[in-house]
Amino acid sequence: MQEQDKEISQAVIGRLPRYLRYLGELKDEGVERISSQELSERMKVTASQIRQDLNHFGGFGQQGYGYNVEFLYAEIARILGLDHSYHYIIIGSGNLGKALGNYLNFERRGFLLKGMFDRNESLIGEEVRGIKIRHIRELPEFIRENKIDIAVLTVPKEEAKAIASVLVESGIKAIWNFAHVDLNVPAGVQVENVHLSDSLMKLSYNISNSANP
Amino acid sequence: MQEQDKEISQAVIGRLPRYLRYLGELKDEGVERISSQELSERMKVTASQIRQDLNHFGGFGQQGYGYNVEFLYAEIARILGLDHSYHYIIIGSGNLGKALGNYLNFERRGFLLKGMFDRNESLIGEEVRGIKIRHIRELPEFIRENKIDIAVLTVPKEEAKAIASVLVESGIKAIWNFAHVDLNVPAGVQVENVHLSDSLMKLSYNISNSANP
Repeated sequence: MQEQDKEISQAVIGRLPRYLRYLGELKDEGVERISSQELSERMKVTASQIRQDLNHFGGFGQQGYGYNVEFLYAEIARILGLDHSYHYIIIGSGNLGKALGNYLNFERRGFLLKGMFDRNESLIGEEVRGIKIRHIRELPEFIRENKIDIAVLTVPKEEAKAIASVLVESGIKAIWNFAHVDLNVPAGVQVENVHLSDSLMKLSYNISNSANP
Repeated sequence: MQEQDKEISQAVIGRLPRYLRYLGELKDEGVERISSQELSERMKVTASQIRQDLNHFGGFGQQGYGYNVEFLYAEIARILGLDHSYHYIIIGSGNLGKALGNYLNFERRGFLLKGMFDRNESLIGEEVRGIKIRHIRELPEFIRENKIDIAVLTVPKEEAKAIASVLVESGIKAIWNFAHVDLNVPAGVQVENVHLSDSLMKLSYNISNSANP
């Protein structure tokens, strides 16, 4: 199956979490099968787009029979790497770090919070969901001694690059970066950026272009 | 200029905030002109991509002369609607709402925090940067009495749709949605989603596909 997975384009991959979300809701509602037409109406994308995207997964019964919700949900979760769990730490324990640390949906998806860090002495020892905030100087040892898959970076942009270097040297292979700066990491280290300002600017673009037609 | 703007594709628009960020850094460094080649090396995208994207803006001097940093920065800011300011409110004053309310970079860009709301009585009256947290029952009146452009939604997904309806009825034209649900809003209301789980799943996809080649 791995070879088949490789052929899925990044554009399709980017849409998979949304399919997973809708299929999860259908599962919760007890729906066993759904046609591309019904799914299309729920998701407000064309049925043809859905058929094209989901064709990558095969095995969803014949024409007119619809998709098997449970099967497709499991398949997409597997493709997204959600069939196993990940250990993550958060560096930067301000409001954003705490918000992410408290987000129980991540836990449900298999992302397990193992540590929180900050350089602010006044935060050290505070707890988030039973996880004690440690000083960032403990990072290298903590990463080496615990099997940490993902480091979440919610520090000011001025500190992000230096901390990313420490993370990479300590063996971290994936960084979820909320600092508003592009990180330079070696090949083999995955970075996913959440640049909140960029998202807000897209909104202001759309406001400006709808308000002044 | 408005007609010219319209022709810029969403893909280019999506890349503009990153250009703005790099041009802002160049401005801060006192750089007046930069060639597409130099910008390409900094931004790690091809010079040809940069030339194509920035061709939409014209007016950056002749071949071999490079881009005028100040001019291009101002042009891109204008296209993104950053040449005027916006009033925004935050609904959901937990850790994420507080993190966004405290983010001074938004203020520098012209996004001015005017109100914070929650339904949790124990938060009412608390202050974030001098802004008192109010009960969400005050939303309609507050929106009508203050010129609010953007509502930031950081509430649980179960509450998001109902609150979005109240916002739309009260005249809100733009929602920055952090709730993990798609909102149904009338045409003319802009929604920009930040689905954090989706971003985390892209990371787990990339981890899985690099770890098991």
